[in-house]
Amino acid sequence: MLTPQRRPEPLTSPAAFAVFTMILTQGPVSRVEIARRTGLSSAAVTKAARPFIDAGYLRELDATERSAPGAGRPASPLTIRSDREFFIGVKITDSELIGVVTDLSAQVQVTAHRALPSPSVQDVVAELAALVADLLASAPEYGDRCHSLGMAISGDVDKAGGLVRYSPFLGWHQVPLAELVAARTGLSVTVENDVKALTVAEQWFGEGIGASSFAVVTVGTGIGCGLVVNDRVVAGAHGVAGEIGHVPVGGDGPPCHCGGAGCVEAIAGTEPILVAARAATGDESLTIERVLAIARAGDPAMREVLARAGHAIGLAMAAMANLFGPERIIVTGDVAGLASYELVEKQITRAFAGQAFGAAADCRVILRPRTFEQWARGAAAVAIQSLFTLQET
Amino acid sequence: MLTPQRRPEPLTSPAAFAVFTMILTQGPVSRVEIARRTGLSSAAVTKAARPFIDAGYLRELDATERSAPGAGRPASPLTIRSDREFFIGVKITDSELIGVVTDLSAQVQVTAHRALPSPSVQDVVAELAALVADLLASAPEYGDRCHSLGMAISGDVDKAGGLVRYSPFLGWHQVPLAELVAARTGLSVTVENDVKALTVAEQWFGEGIGASSFAVVTVGTGIGCGLVVNDRVVAGAHGVAGEIGHVPVGGDGPPCHCGGAGCVEAIAGTEPILVAARAATGDESLTIERVLAIARAGDPAMREVLARAGHAIGLAMAAMANLFGPERIIVTGDVAGLASYELVEKQITRAFAGQAFGAAADCRVILRPRTFEQWARGAAAVAIQSLFTLQET
Repeated sequence: MLTPQRRPEPLTSPAAFAVFTMILTQGPVSRVEIARRTGLSSAAVTKAARPFIDAGYLRELDATERSAPGAGRPASPLTIRSDREFFIGVKITDSELIGVVTDLSAQVQVTAHRALPSPSVQDVVAELAALVADLLASAPEYGDRCHSLGMAISGDVDKAGGLVRYSPFLGWHQVPLAELVAARTGLSVTVENDVKALTVAEQWFGEGIGASSFAVVTVGTGIGCGLVVNDRVVAGAHGVAGEIGHVPVGGDGPPCHCGGAGCVEAIAGTEPILVAARAATGDESLTIERVLAIARAGDPAMREVLARAGHAIGLAMAAMANLFGPERIIVTGDVAGLASYELVEKQITRAFAGQAFGAAADCRVILRPRTFEQWARGAAAVAIQSLFTLQET
Repeated sequence: MLTPQRRPEPLTSPAAFAVFTMILTQGPVSRVEIARRTGLSSAAVTKAARPFIDAGYLRELDATERSAPGAGRPASPLTIRSDREFFIGVKITDSELIGVVTDLSAQVQVTAHRALPSPSVQDVVAELAALVADLLASAPEYGDRCHSLGMAISGDVDKAGGLVRYSPFLGWHQVPLAELVAARTGLSVTVENDVKALTVAEQWFGEGIGASSFAVVTVGTGIGCGLVVNDRVVAGAHGVAGEIGHVPVGGDGPPCHCGGAGCVEAIAGTEPILVAARAATGDESLTIERVLAIARAGDPAMREVLARAGHAIGLAMAAMANLFGPERIIVTGDVAGLASYELVEKQITRAFAGQAFGAAADCRVILRPRTFEQWARGAAAVAIQSLFTLQET
């Protein structure tokens, strides 16, 4: 981050971080239960929580909220004041910006889109500034209580430096995006790879809660993956990790744009699905939406094309599970992927079960389509996590 | 561990752990340099090191040792007193025990073997006790200064419980090996999966030093892997991890004993190499040693069989690197693998480079054959690491 990093005043120690993030991601929860789960003393929990209560980030549940009929809660549970602060998240694609405002619990409050006149850095930054202005104007409280913007973009991103090193879809190289956007908006800005952003959203606010290791597999134009091992997102020593799209499950072929062969992405990415579907039908004008519609109508050739894609994805997921043994795998994707899940789910789960080694097959596979708004929410989740994570010194 | 866990008195805090392990794995190193690398204050480093010096685990380098001509060293470097304590490591195979005594720096001092009359638990425990007695008797200082025994065995091992859950080669299920051997030897006993033990040896005393993420790939009867991510060996949420042998790189085949298809192990394990070599020659009596000898003599058919194996291993290594981006990969193996490296090295590195995605190809690949004695050293390294690791409470 090249912009000055904000830090909430109560966040003063690892204990404060542990207590607050447990309430944020798993609350409401009582001090006694927090002590039990973190290994901190009750006194330490109370001491850590107090400044967050004073600063308005936490509150005790009301008596009325505690007495759900037939479900007694432990004494004095603490919960997040979700409206204490708001966050903007933006997913950047090559043709549009998708923006959301979320509260502190990453719940989406409002959504807005803007088409991009071009993918040039100048146009994207200008449209980002306009989108942020629109979102901030959409409710009076955002002006006072929204200071952070997260952006998610596909490609090679240096989050610490706020730099988009390379984005193939936008044709960007070495763009200091965080700095450019911070100068235009005055917000504290983070930028992260979109798949990693979605992984952070699952880790703190989604299907990854409570799992110290899990994977998010994204199915769409390409096939991507975010990995969490021992509670940390895997970054890769050389900046590459989670490239499940380039696990070679096809044997000697087909050739892949990466230079390899048999890659999942060369079988199950949108483009190879279209190539196979066009070859099967002779219709060169087929779109992915049309392929899915024809398959849903029962066409055996289109179903076979999608089945091959699902099989390849399931094999690659098994390869991943055999290597690092995640507790859960969440399979997700954009709108095109979403529409096709019903057509590939059986092949994914069957190929996974057949290739997973021994107890690796016990890994829970969750298919959970996500819209572009949810990718934007991932960007907001990164902004939240960045705000509430102690930086190592 | 079912036996009471020893703990050296000076090991009282995370700072003490950080200081001691840095000197153990990267020393000699000055207090100033330790402070720089760990982020501790100089006073904290001095305070942490003092009790280890008093207990004889550390010492300052003599002035004579410091003044290597032309190579000035920083002031007051600290170093390990390697002969302060000794450790026994044993690799258990289905036919023999390979034992070593190492010093505190995991340097092998003496080696001994014992054939197993049978792989029964009773026979193995009896021979282990005899082997330990032989090793302890081999030098007078071992009686006083050797209190820990590490064992390494292939299969599914619960290190924390000292339990061999399943060892296919020995036909063992749920054997409380640590407890049985501790009762016979009076030593503090650890048992670990053999590939993980080798990984620990590389992490603290070998090619993994200084890398927060790396992998060890073992090539032999099967193909295994140990992964270190963010400085921790990956265990797998369901007890399975590092099963690189079951990454499906062969497409639809060949079938594997695991129930999957196209697994690396079904192509590059010893048995499928023998099957392919026998099919190519019509000689059903071929052994792996003979296959390697014929290939080394230049036979094209045998060379082709081994090339296919190397290619499959390289592809699986690329799949792993694409997923978690290790800094280094160390390829190792037992004696059969050792002899064949010259015949497969080119195929391994070529397939890896061709399939690694972008900067994942920058991962350093190190081919380093290990003898069975070095696997036994891995078991001793686990005993050392267990002794000097603070248990989480």
